[in-house]
Amino acid sequence: MPMVQITMLEGRSAEQKRKMAQRITDVLVEEAAARREAIVVAFHEVSKESYASGGVLMVDKGK
Amino acid sequence: MPMVQITMLEGRSAEQKRKMAQRITDVLVEEAAARREAIVVAFHEVSKESYASGGVLMVDKGK
Amino acid sequence: MPMVQITMLEGRSAEQKRKMAQRITDVLVEEAAARREAIVVAFHEVSKESYASGGVLMVDKGK
Amino acid sequence: MPMVQITMLEGRSAEQKRKMAQRITDVLVEEAAARREAIVVAFHEVSKESYASGGVLMVDKGK
Amino acid sequence: MPMVQITMLEGRSAEQKRKMAQRITDVLVEEAAARREAIVVAFHEVSKESYASGGVLMVDKGK
Amino acid sequence: MPMVQITMLEGRSAEQKRKMAQRITDVLVEEAAARREAIVVAFHEVSKESYASGGVLMVDKGK
Repeated sequence: MPMVQITMLEGRSAEQKRKMAQRITDVLVEEAAARREAIVVAFHEVSKESYASGGVLMVDKGK
Repeated sequence: MPMVQITMLEGRSAEQKRKMAQRITDVLVEEAAARREAIVVAFHEVSKESYASGGVLMVDKGK
Repeated sequence: MPMVQITMLEGRSAEQKRKMAQRITDVLVEEAAARREAIVVAFHEVSKESYASGGVLMVDKGK
Repeated sequence: MPMVQITMLEGRSAEQKRKMAQRITDVLVEEAAARREAIVVAFHEVSKESYASGGVLMVDKGK
Repeated sequence: MPMVQITMLEGRSAEQKRKMAQRITDVLVEEAAARREAIVVAFHEVSKESYASGGVLMVDKGK
Repeated sequence: MPMVQITMLEGRSAEQKRKMAQRITDVLVEEAAARREAIVVAFHEVSKESYASGGVLMVDKGK
């Protein structure tokens, strides 16, 4: 009964999330023998001002 | 000092969240002997395009 | 289809977690009109060396 | 730069986690145009006493 | 390769998040010997109706 | 009332976590005007078999 939580930058389309949810669910069914109906996937989308790597906000990258 | 994080579809009213926070806090105090003041509850609300079960986005259910 | 994630100190018994899971699920059914079968609750238990409040690890409290 | 957090029952082998991490990363690269090097996947494994669905701990299912 | 997830009330400026991300990353580099480039920090900002302590929503505090 | 959740590889000492918790709490007090007593920090430590970057488990890096 896996719960998958994905934190990523906002801006992906519903179609992109549809495919990700579908394929990630497939992976868990095929590799972890999880029951399909029991898998939940949630996308937590954050702005470029709320996400940093290497200590630098995404909004400041490439400046 | 439990932290409770609830991921759910957006659309619940403040009154619903008020009662959930109150009652879930009561549960932790009564069953886990947690100190009331130390319990935090956060609701992470996601859209129907950002939540899937069984590999299907909520926005596509019932179609 | 709410996901509930609870981070708390290790040491609670199965019976305590049983009651918490049961009652928190009841709360979500009654207050958020969530479908019972779709609610998942996970307990993430951490040691006193892995939990701090006010900047002080639990293992150092009361020293 | 997605972060993927997967909460699931303990008991999967390293080989299963290896394949899941690999394939989920592929999905994010292919569907979300994420940069491969920037994707992190973490598995949070919990015991059957720390995971409930429908208000019932996994350890009590099938009893 | 630490992932840092911070749940807090909405309302902080980009400048505040910039400094927090920078300084928290410094802490992980200096104290945990983490590689700077591998550290990600995400801010999950919730409204006063979605955050409770002691069983009381922030929106109801001080009433 | 920020909640800070840090997912990282296991193996850090209590002393390292003590300093991280202390200094991260300081950062939130100084930069976000958070109330010190209300800040919680939790470390979720995972094994090298439960953490991947770039699609590769940490246990397989450098092989």
